[in-house]
Amino acid sequence: MADDKPWGGRFSEPTDAFVERLNASVGFDQRLWREDVDGSLAHAAMLAQQGILTAEDLQAIQQGLAAIRADIEGGRFVWEQKLEDVHMNVERRLTERIGQAGARLHTARSRNDQVATDLRLWVLRYLDGLLPRIDALQDALLTLAERDGDAILPGYTHLQRAQPILFAHHLLAYVEMFERDRGRFVDARRRTAESPLGAAALAGTPFPIDRAATAAALGFHRPMANSLDAVADRDFAVELVAGAALMMTHLSRFAEELVLWSSQEFAFVELSDAFATGSSIMPQKKNPDIPELVRGKTGRVFGDLVALLTVLKGLPLAYNKDLQEDKEALFDAADTLGDCVEAMTRLLPGLKVRRDRMRAACDAGFVTATDVADYLARRGLPFRDAHHVVGRLVGWCIANERTLPSLSLEELRQFSDLFAEDILAAVTVEASVAARTSLGGTAPDRVAAALAAARARLAARGT
Amino acid sequence: MADDKPWGGRFSEPTDAFVERLNASVGFDQRLWREDVDGSLAHAAMLAQQGILTAEDLQAIQQGLAAIRADIEGGRFVWEQKLEDVHMNVERRLTERIGQAGARLHTARSRNDQVATDLRLWVLRYLDGLLPRIDALQDALLTLAERDGDAILPGYTHLQRAQPILFAHHLLAYVEMFERDRGRFVDARRRTAESPLGAAALAGTPFPIDRAATAAALGFHRPMANSLDAVADRDFAVELVAGAALMMTHLSRFAEELVLWSSQEFAFVELSDAFATGSSIMPQKKNPDIPELVRGKTGRVFGDLVALLTVLKGLPLAYNKDLQEDKEALFDAADTLGDCVEAMTRLLPGLKVRRDRMRAACDAGFVTATDVADYLARRGLPFRDAHHVVGRLVGWCIANERTLPSLSLEELRQFSDLFAEDILAAVTVEASVAARTSLGGTAPDRVAAALAAARARLAARGT
Amino acid sequence: MADDKPWGGRFSEPTDAFVERLNASVGFDQRLWREDVDGSLAHAAMLAQQGILTAEDLQAIQQGLAAIRADIEGGRFVWEQKLEDVHMNVERRLTERIGQAGARLHTARSRNDQVATDLRLWVLRYLDGLLPRIDALQDALLTLAERDGDAILPGYTHLQRAQPILFAHHLLAYVEMFERDRGRFVDARRRTAESPLGAAALAGTPFPIDRAATAAALGFHRPMANSLDAVADRDFAVELVAGAALMMTHLSRFAEELVLWSSQEFAFVELSDAFATGSSIMPQKKNPDIPELVRGKTGRVFGDLVALLTVLKGLPLAYNKDLQEDKEALFDAADTLGDCVEAMTRLLPGLKVRRDRMRAACDAGFVTATDVADYLARRGLPFRDAHHVVGRLVGWCIANERTLPSLSLEELRQFSDLFAEDILAAVTVEASVAARTSLGGTAPDRVAAALAAARARLAARGT
Amino acid sequence: MADDKPWGGRFSEPTDAFVERLNASVGFDQRLWREDVDGSLAHAAMLAQQGILTAEDLQAIQQGLAAIRADIEGGRFVWEQKLEDVHMNVERRLTERIGQAGARLHTARSRNDQVATDLRLWVLRYLDGLLPRIDALQDALLTLAERDGDAILPGYTHLQRAQPILFAHHLLAYVEMFERDRGRFVDARRRTAESPLGAAALAGTPFPIDRAATAAALGFHRPMANSLDAVADRDFAVELVAGAALMMTHLSRFAEELVLWSSQEFAFVELSDAFATGSSIMPQKKNPDIPELVRGKTGRVFGDLVALLTVLKGLPLAYNKDLQEDKEALFDAADTLGDCVEAMTRLLPGLKVRRDRMRAACDAGFVTATDVADYLARRGLPFRDAHHVVGRLVGWCIANERTLPSLSLEELRQFSDLFAEDILAAVTVEASVAARTSLGGTAPDRVAAALAAARARLAARGT
Repeated sequence: MADDKPWGGRFSEPTDAFVERLNASVGFDQRLWREDVDGSLAHAAMLAQQGILTAEDLQAIQQGLAAIRADIEGGRFVWEQKLEDVHMNVERRLTERIGQAGARLHTARSRNDQVATDLRLWVLRYLDGLLPRIDALQDALLTLAERDGDAILPGYTHLQRAQPILFAHHLLAYVEMFERDRGRFVDARRRTAESPLGAAALAGTPFPIDRAATAAALGFHRPMANSLDAVADRDFAVELVAGAALMMTHLSRFAEELVLWSSQEFAFVELSDAFATGSSIMPQKKNPDIPELVRGKTGRVFGDLVALLTVLKGLPLAYNKDLQEDKEALFDAADTLGDCVEAMTRLLPGLKVRRDRMRAACDAGFVTATDVADYLARRGLPFRDAHHVVGRLVGWCIANERTLPSLSLEELRQFSDLFAEDILAAVTVEASVAARTSLGGTAPDRVAAALAAARARLAARGT
Repeated sequence: MADDKPWGGRFSEPTDAFVERLNASVGFDQRLWREDVDGSLAHAAMLAQQGILTAEDLQAIQQGLAAIRADIEGGRFVWEQKLEDVHMNVERRLTERIGQAGARLHTARSRNDQVATDLRLWVLRYLDGLLPRIDALQDALLTLAERDGDAILPGYTHLQRAQPILFAHHLLAYVEMFERDRGRFVDARRRTAESPLGAAALAGTPFPIDRAATAAALGFHRPMANSLDAVADRDFAVELVAGAALMMTHLSRFAEELVLWSSQEFAFVELSDAFATGSSIMPQKKNPDIPELVRGKTGRVFGDLVALLTVLKGLPLAYNKDLQEDKEALFDAADTLGDCVEAMTRLLPGLKVRRDRMRAACDAGFVTATDVADYLARRGLPFRDAHHVVGRLVGWCIANERTLPSLSLEELRQFSDLFAEDILAAVTVEASVAARTSLGGTAPDRVAAALAAARARLAARGT
Repeated sequence: MADDKPWGGRFSEPTDAFVERLNASVGFDQRLWREDVDGSLAHAAMLAQQGILTAEDLQAIQQGLAAIRADIEGGRFVWEQKLEDVHMNVERRLTERIGQAGARLHTARSRNDQVATDLRLWVLRYLDGLLPRIDALQDALLTLAERDGDAILPGYTHLQRAQPILFAHHLLAYVEMFERDRGRFVDARRRTAESPLGAAALAGTPFPIDRAATAAALGFHRPMANSLDAVADRDFAVELVAGAALMMTHLSRFAEELVLWSSQEFAFVELSDAFATGSSIMPQKKNPDIPELVRGKTGRVFGDLVALLTVLKGLPLAYNKDLQEDKEALFDAADTLGDCVEAMTRLLPGLKVRRDRMRAACDAGFVTATDVADYLARRGLPFRDAHHVVGRLVGWCIANERTLPSLSLEELRQFSDLFAEDILAAVTVEASVAARTSLGGTAPDRVAAALAAARARLAARGT
Repeated sequence: MADDKPWGGRFSEPTDAFVERLNASVGFDQRLWREDVDGSLAHAAMLAQQGILTAEDLQAIQQGLAAIRADIEGGRFVWEQKLEDVHMNVERRLTERIGQAGARLHTARSRNDQVATDLRLWVLRYLDGLLPRIDALQDALLTLAERDGDAILPGYTHLQRAQPILFAHHLLAYVEMFERDRGRFVDARRRTAESPLGAAALAGTPFPIDRAATAAALGFHRPMANSLDAVADRDFAVELVAGAALMMTHLSRFAEELVLWSSQEFAFVELSDAFATGSSIMPQKKNPDIPELVRGKTGRVFGDLVALLTVLKGLPLAYNKDLQEDKEALFDAADTLGDCVEAMTRLLPGLKVRRDRMRAACDAGFVTATDVADYLARRGLPFRDAHHVVGRLVGWCIANERTLPSLSLEELRQFSDLFAEDILAAVTVEASVAARTSLGGTAPDRVAAALAAARARLAARGT
């Protein structure tokens, strides 16, 4: 336990060990090892193709890196802090294994372009894993909408019951949010897929390298155009984390709703036991831990974004050591987003929807008041005046403990002569939902069409 | 002066006035008036088209809004805080002018979709103004690169002189950054160009509206697909501000370099007097105020981003009053970015480049040390070993106050037998620059090609 | 309307006007005019005392500044952007009025120490206004606690009903939070109350000034010890804004509860009409706008904090123009906090507490389950085991739609032999509240004592 | 390597394991084990004292916890993720060892007050370690000031040479900053030193506990006054991290100066090799890695602060699972600050100060221009006019490549009749420094006194 005393332990470290530890990144950048090995293989193959390395050297490098890959995968690789980072750890081991050929691998390359390449590659692979997970989350929402989506609950504004909506309509709002998130990540991926490899330290290299070849071999769309920019740029990290921060706001909104809906006051849903926990002291509690955690984890991703932006503020070109601080924030945001997307995806199938409670919340409110106003407006009363009439009507109901559906035509006509027999059918919750037939509205046909469109979109992506 | 006493003044306000002031947004949302009027015109025309408004009502609304537009442009419009926001101010005035027809304008619309529409429209128009300004900034960089780009200065890593580069190569790094920024704003614009109009309060409307028509009339690509999402979403604001924050990091990096380069220690450039100021106490000072301000203003845009994200965190659907806090952060970030882009664009033409100082900084350093190592590597020494040889060589030079170009072949050969006659030409600053011929490198031909490509890109966009 | 077109208008500005506008701070720092005049008066008096200014000059300065003060208060002072800031505007006007004596006022002073002095003075005065406002907020909470504090509502963890508590106990939790906030502001005030005046540009001055005298005259505790630090430091701004950000989290938590409690699902309270608003489309709505705004405004204060920290990151000593960006974030955070404190203070007296609803929420839950477990633990069952027994008991109740108070002794004893007659009295809501007699607990006597202690604390401060 | 594939690995996890992992905090809260054991010992002793536990139970608990402590210190304790957190891991092991007595330890306590107690205790101990480290940093600055403080370098504003100052004066500015930081941490410690223990789940407990006793036993000043606040409050974490963020801005400013000063352009200092590193490609480089890292790490602490504030925003009382997200941000900020304080402290003794370079930078500038203006002001010219005269004089010097000290009296008198023989001595760098005798100024006597005062302050604290 290195850190069991909050402070004291550090005193006994010799100076060099302290600086070495502070300087070293291998503790967190070793997870880039696959990208580092792949990048070295692509670089070596290109060097050989260009006649900069011999075929023998290439073969030795390929065999050496294959052995290192096997060692790491087998848990036999010993990471050394004094070698600072993943790059030097791998290179040193390679040189120990194959000698001079290993040392020649670093020709026409610098750690500056190497680390930028590895990190971009990691982001590409992360995004390639994330996009299907967002699809899976949307799929889970659609599946729930298909199962329980015809339940009617109050739509809320200001957390006040506003108008009745279909549960599917509510869920589809999140499908739209996550679709925008997905689009942002697709765009970010496109900008990330440019290869820094070959920028060398900052100015390019005199060796006759083929940057297009290494870019293609690693799955990049093209080489980056400017060598200074290639080693100084961390936009791709910021863009990923900014996208994660925004997606976390969406997840936090959904999490907030799950917490609200799980309260005894709302009781619109019940989480399966696996996503809730008990209390160490209160035997009756069933706490919505996972939604709460998702909501709370929003903070750390905001923090990661601030951390990255702050690191970059005011840095002169090109590479500065400050950039070493890019990785932990990036990894943390990426891991957190991944966990939260997965948590929500896993949680949805076991969600028990309490249709009775949702419906009761509609009946006890005045969620069809707008429909009454719309009724009057359709009969020619300016909407602002209709709104005023219904405001008085609702006030009277509250004072007299009445609900809208309970009113007789006579009672209604005391507020406006425009009320006729058909008003009684117009103020039911079902009628209200059915009436909102505008594009994007909550009427069942519209929702069914939206659901089908979202399904088709997912299907076109293979989910 | 309402705020001249930090606190006391508020006490004398009657309660209602205080709440009215806190609640009102007209102080900052009145700048949306053009978008509000345009949105109302599109909505009214559609209502008439669909038979919901009469032709007479439409004509009255169009004439009334035209008069209001003229009043606002003429400075004759009196904004009233008690009417809360730009929407109610405009609507109230309209009703005063044209009576019942004005009240009917709000049919099939709510402030919830109205404000979302106005704000998205504002963002679209802002971006349509910003994109050419980014082009203009790139143009100013290219023009400077064309004028003084053949100057050679040290490229830096860790703020240590590293390798000589062309000044044009350095400037092109920023052209690349701003090109990515531009791409992000183009993507953001695409996602913003979906119309919320017709979502009404949150659930759609029973009126037979044509959302595609209003979307098209206002320049949106399409209507938003879900009415709840339409009124609850502020992604477009976050995405713009996140893009602004990232572009500000680029501007702050350039500003930092201008501050450094303006110091007596670097003295690589001199700002024109218009972009620097004097000191109230030190007569000799010429302070780089504008770059300092640009660097400092990075903070407020980061702050705007945090503000927006925080507002959204954990909000249940759909509209909540918290969302009123979206505008000031959005406007501030947008205005700040615009100012800083323009400041940099205006500053560049008057920048005096001190080629002598840049060159002197190259000569006094060991910026060609990598070239010596590359020389040895090309002669077969593994790069890591070559690096080691040159490290000893540089150490010897520092101890003996010698520079690399001053060394004789005999002296060099004391460090390695691989040195031959051609090393003497290889270690000049010009040779070093010329040698970095890899794609994206600083060799003059590469830089000329990159400059031409950037010019062509701008030209293709009409700049 | 300078900004009615998002962008276009700026094009027509001549370069100089643009730079002048960007550079100028008078638009936002003019609110420092009182502090600026007071600082100049103290500086002038000291200069005269030290024989640096003549008595005639001093008198002229005093009369000139008095006239300027009257002009500003009377709204007759014309602020000029081309004079950049409040300091130059006042000084220029003074010199126009009294000639050479005005120019001599700037002896032994620089704008660097002048602006730092003005801003610190503003913070001191702001805090002197804020502290009584925090007292008033606490007073409003205590008054509400005295009026309705004996109402019993469920205490929540994870937004699940946990244990019954007194409403006063809940309100007192906020009194504690605001007391800590107050303490932080008192500490911040102590650190702010050091005078930078006399640090001059950065290194002190050769004039025989008396910094202790100006410090005392302006209400500072002492002069700052180091002249570089005096002009470079903005800790006092960060510390105020950090304190504001933390107090905003407390206000946001209370605001969140008011929003929840105002929902039809909870319906624990009703806001007076002045603090809620209606809907433009839904006649039945009563929206808790003010609590929502307070919650939302938390974001802007977080943003202000990030803005300030970012400005300071990595700035070399001493003054840099970036520091001009300190004021707007500071003023915004200070104003926002002030508004939100006042809004909550004004809202509380009109809050209608729905005791029936609070009590009903207790009865329908299992909020006394812990009491049953405690009962068993007091009879010797290890708590973990008691917890387990009650867990099974609650599960049985839910399955059989029973509540805890409805159970007979026989039924209870099926779960544990340790239950005896006295359990029936122990599981009432009142008994549960009364039992929590530990220090800081919710038992009525404890709460009464806590209320009295808080009252006494306020009284000792004169509230 | 659990995370070697950015995403794929998670798919194979069974649902329960995933939720368990997300829910568990033992991975990061196990470092609280000392505080958890100490808290349990204090709680148990108090329970026995109050007759709630038997003496036998107490003895068993004490022996059991001692054995657990030995196991953890000896590395023999196996932490289990399925037990969620440090508290349950310790309690479960205790119960395995000593049976029922272990289960009785949780009487009158909840995890809610337990975790709050542990975390506050950790903060107290952290601060007790941090304060002497800040003293050590100040000591290192003073030692450097005593060694090389009489070197004269230009003081800068806007990164322009402004006025000559003593190096000691510059260092003392940082001593002042760190003294304010220290004061903030002392204040934070005072507010942290209130014990939540005994608040139980949220409402207190019916057991006759003695909260003052446990508070005293653990080193708290007093029990917290309100049980809801006790479990819901994380102010102490925010206050520590806010203090850390502000101290990081100070460290980042110093780090920025070290980076600048290490550049070949400034070359004011040279870092010892242990605090700088070389380049993998450029043999001549000596990079100031440690200062760069310190500057970069500022970002993560800002991010930690944003993370914590975001978690707290809008949370209803009392405990919510979101609060589990408090620990990692707190630990990260605390560890980072500690590392950076120590890094700077260790770096200073080996700093080589290049007095010649500092002095040369003074001579080549016009750093005594203010002195010339002050000279004229002392002779009666209004300062603003004197400033104007010297401005013209400097302009003439630049145009004619002259320095101020090189001017003859005749030349000077062409700009003002007020110049007399004594001006020649007044414009030397030494005279300029010596002249700034105002309190807090850079005159040698003032600096010596300030140094002595800072030394005495440290000595009074035992450093």
